[in-house]
Amino acid sequence: MYRNKTCGELRLIDAGTDVTICGWVQRMRDMGGMTFIDLRDRYGITQLVFNMDGNQLLCTEARKLGREFVISVSGKVTERSNKNPKMETGEIEILVDQFTLLNASKVPPFTIEDESDGGEDLRMKFRYLDIRRNPVKEALVLRHRIAQETRKFFDAQGFIEVETPVLIKSTPEGARDFIVPSRMNPGGFYALPQSPQTFKQLLMVAGMDRYFQLVKCFRDEDLRADRQPEFTQVDCEMAFVEREDILQMFEKYIKTLFEAEKKILLSAFPRMSFEEAMRDYGNDKPDLRFGMKLNDITSLVKGKNFKVLDEAETVQAIVAEGCSAYTRRQLDELTEFVKRPQTGASGMIYVKYNTDETIRSSVDKFYSTDDLKHWISATKAKAGDLILVLAGASGKIRKAMSELRLEMGNRLGLRKKDVFSPLWVIDFPLLEWDDELKRYQAMHHPFTSPLPEDTHLMDTDAGRVRANAYDLVINGQEIGGGSIRIHDRNLQQKLFSLLGFTQQQAESQFGFLMNAFEYGAPPHGGIAFGFDRLCALFGGSDSIRDYIAFPKNNSGRDVMIDAPAPVSKEQLDELGLEFKYQL
Amino acid sequence: MYRNKTCGELRLIDAGTDVTICGWVQRMRDMGGMTFIDLRDRYGITQLVFNMDGNQLLCTEARKLGREFVISVSGKVTERSNKNPKMETGEIEILVDQFTLLNASKVPPFTIEDESDGGEDLRMKFRYLDIRRNPVKEALVLRHRIAQETRKFFDAQGFIEVETPVLIKSTPEGARDFIVPSRMNPGGFYALPQSPQTFKQLLMVAGMDRYFQLVKCFRDEDLRADRQPEFTQVDCEMAFVEREDILQMFEKYIKTLFEAEKKILLSAFPRMSFEEAMRDYGNDKPDLRFGMKLNDITSLVKGKNFKVLDEAETVQAIVAEGCSAYTRRQLDELTEFVKRPQTGASGMIYVKYNTDETIRSSVDKFYSTDDLKHWISATKAKAGDLILVLAGASGKIRKAMSELRLEMGNRLGLRKKDVFSPLWVIDFPLLEWDDELKRYQAMHHPFTSPLPEDTHLMDTDAGRVRANAYDLVINGQEIGGGSIRIHDRNLQQKLFSLLGFTQQQAESQFGFLMNAFEYGAPPHGGIAFGFDRLCALFGGSDSIRDYIAFPKNNSGRDVMIDAPAPVSKEQLDELGLEFKYQL
Repeated sequence: MYRNKTCGELRLIDAGTDVTICGWVQRMRDMGGMTFIDLRDRYGITQLVFNMDGNQLLCTEARKLGREFVISVSGKVTERSNKNPKMETGEIEILVDQFTLLNASKVPPFTIEDESDGGEDLRMKFRYLDIRRNPVKEALVLRHRIAQETRKFFDAQGFIEVETPVLIKSTPEGARDFIVPSRMNPGGFYALPQSPQTFKQLLMVAGMDRYFQLVKCFRDEDLRADRQPEFTQVDCEMAFVEREDILQMFEKYIKTLFEAEKKILLSAFPRMSFEEAMRDYGNDKPDLRFGMKLNDITSLVKGKNFKVLDEAETVQAIVAEGCSAYTRRQLDELTEFVKRPQTGASGMIYVKYNTDETIRSSVDKFYSTDDLKHWISATKAKAGDLILVLAGASGKIRKAMSELRLEMGNRLGLRKKDVFSPLWVIDFPLLEWDDELKRYQAMHHPFTSPLPEDTHLMDTDAGRVRANAYDLVINGQEIGGGSIRIHDRNLQQKLFSLLGFTQQQAESQFGFLMNAFEYGAPPHGGIAFGFDRLCALFGGSDSIRDYIAFPKNNSGRDVMIDAPAPVSKEQLDELGLEFKYQL
Repeated sequence: MYRNKTCGELRLIDAGTDVTICGWVQRMRDMGGMTFIDLRDRYGITQLVFNMDGNQLLCTEARKLGREFVISVSGKVTERSNKNPKMETGEIEILVDQFTLLNASKVPPFTIEDESDGGEDLRMKFRYLDIRRNPVKEALVLRHRIAQETRKFFDAQGFIEVETPVLIKSTPEGARDFIVPSRMNPGGFYALPQSPQTFKQLLMVAGMDRYFQLVKCFRDEDLRADRQPEFTQVDCEMAFVEREDILQMFEKYIKTLFEAEKKILLSAFPRMSFEEAMRDYGNDKPDLRFGMKLNDITSLVKGKNFKVLDEAETVQAIVAEGCSAYTRRQLDELTEFVKRPQTGASGMIYVKYNTDETIRSSVDKFYSTDDLKHWISATKAKAGDLILVLAGASGKIRKAMSELRLEMGNRLGLRKKDVFSPLWVIDFPLLEWDDELKRYQAMHHPFTSPLPEDTHLMDTDAGRVRANAYDLVINGQEIGGGSIRIHDRNLQQKLFSLLGFTQQQAESQFGFLMNAFEYGAPPHGGIAFGFDRLCALFGGSDSIRDYIAFPKNNSGRDVMIDAPAPVSKEQLDELGLEFKYQL
């Protein structure tokens, strides 16, 4: 027993008791005859007092301690004369009788405070010190809480957590697999799962009825800012369900989390078709914390000899409320913004509908006040508003407009951290045409079933078939997605052939699943939530990395342990492998 | 909504209500004008009735169904005339109004019954059908329950579940790693963790204080009967603890599981030193459900001109109670048993201490009745008992005797399935001498600390140093093991050098951990439980495979999905790898 109390639990009521606590030296202050140390552990901070008059030797020893030294101290809990109402333990301090140095510390490479002076790289290299900082520690504790709530919820709903294998088989569909050479099966490779998709479907065929799992998944992709090669999913599947059953169940799950974690009672989640989302927000994961819908004004703008708009496939407008007084400079900034390669518009048109009802625009040369009044009425702008217009190729402009809308949302403070706007997006297209490959690709994945009312189009007009799929979007982030699956061998085979699989390819890669469908596969469907993302949402952060104990950087490296790393020639020899290049 | 009830929940009180249930056709019986179908889902079996008189068309359709067809049926719950008290739903049946065929089934390759006619290979290939069988399904549900109980326990004790990475770095110490080539870091490889050992220690350095995780671990080992290349651990670590704290905490965990799962209240777990276990049971994981300790009679047997015993390094005896009447044939069987290569003795000596107090032995030629009386008093045998004696080299004989003891335990019915005898084995040697490598190896792993009272021997007599380690053994199975860890850089470095690491090797492989020890590492220790094994223990099975949803076979293959499998040349090219042999 190194301690009988923690640094977070002592209160005034404990005054007079003798305690032993352990922790790290957070701060030390010498005040003439006294030395104060803030001792920190996972649970909090407690102030220690050493008195030069009372025990000179002890106090002298204490003054030799440094930041992050680990000590065990014994002493009497005492009421503070100088109380600190900001600290939970701020009414007491410990008059130290004795202490033991458990371990010394070098000077840490950055300060272990809520706001650290360490850069990202340094903090990642010394992640074990970074985690000592409150915000990082709290993020991991939050993740733990949400994981436990998740399991409690699904357990109570009769779901069974089943561990699916990590060493599976590589399939060329989708993102790249990580592969794992097998020593016992020379020339054979396992792959790490991108998701347990086929296994959870097999569990439905197996009669498990309700399955869930918090499960690591892997993708060997070039990492964008907020992707990790390994990530965690809340993976779920149910048998004998239709879409409505799934939406109800998992809406309840998300509501339960919000109630437990944020004391927020969410009302019924609205639903929106993919088509509507693309039309009104230019995006299939709209942030509904604010309106500012897209207005299609294409037909209004034609025939005024302004070539840019005359030739545009689409012209879209949004209304920034109360922004008619935007300065030249603010408007230039927005123009810069839309012209960035990642936004992709070629320019921006604005119309100021001033508070005095005058109208000013960047296209006054081509459009009369009367023309612009049509724009105003089409977009329902009010006096004092600013209309922003983008024009060009349809796909490009929807994307650019969606980004501009979010940017304006940010500028106007409409994307509030403490507001949560969930949304089910439904009725996605089943297939997307890939111009390069000259064939369809699955918009979700090849196990997604078509909407029952669209199934008849599979043979005649596959591009128009909608999927029985759904995404959960919160505040513009895709939190989860899933579908009712195909459970019929013939339909599955038809979809594989639309996706360009030969019968042989389909058989060799997914034969086990199609065979399973011939032995009494029940109708089933499911969903998967990005758990790292879900934690970031509850933590109020944009980065999932903060919610992962030991994340990898953008090159997929763990800079703390220095992985990946070369392995010995013997290891490769045993696997029959050779690395072809000179490093 | 395909259903509003399950096949497991209807009772007499529901009679008269209209319900819709779904499931698989388990059995069908035509009885003249009636057809009965047992419909099965995860929750149970419900009897359906189709009446030729009432609805000829429906009944005719029903008769076309086959085993494992999936249907949805609607009808009225009715009291049975012929109740079946063995079934929970045995008081009712459903008079079917209509049914929908949801999916047909080919004839399954084995019967979906508690006792299947399918061999292991076939059942593994069609694992999704095997899981429909009650014993397999129940094993997975049991695993789910134990996982939830585990998390509930550790959460309540203030442990935080932290996910450690799966893509880490290869270390040559211990078993073989699976390696994962990194496309983004050409020539670099991740390794899959054999355990999260270093990460959980870093979490202690990080101040997380109490950590746990149910975590997949990986070992590229030649698979013995009951090993899997991927397996699950309950992995735990605590800071500021001594051995006693750990034993208390995890004893409580195991007791909690026994109470929740088996309604068994276990009393305090006995503790035994490694030395005592080896002396009394010839084994460091003794099955304490029965006594039959080993007796060292080496000094008693010398000098009677019986070369075998005169020359033996050790002579060990056990007493089989009430077995003095064993026949020639029974004794021959035991002799055969000890002479098997896996037992490894060269022969067996017996002494029958008959109920009439006469003494008969296989060595009467060399030992007088008076001599043998000494054996009897040394082993505390009673009239009616049989003494079994093995002699030879010490290590070999202890092992053989341990096996003979277990065999006798089996024969005498002393290893009862419903009796659980937990035991902490402590004070293991820190190091084992490896005669081949001519150096020490860590008995547990290189992060295990020596017992404080033995630390002074590290420099002078390392082979005699005992480890601050502990194993939890239940019924002769090692369920978990762990240690108080080293948290001092110098001690860690000393241990690495005893294990034959050059300073450079230690630095390149474990530098990150040793560096971490310099920034205020607290004293810490932990334990890991084999979760698959734990489930098998509670399920009353010897095989962990039954408790894994999709296990691999002894060659590490998943025969259902047919993995591992070759990958395309393009995939290998992208990784810069080449497979060197022609397949």
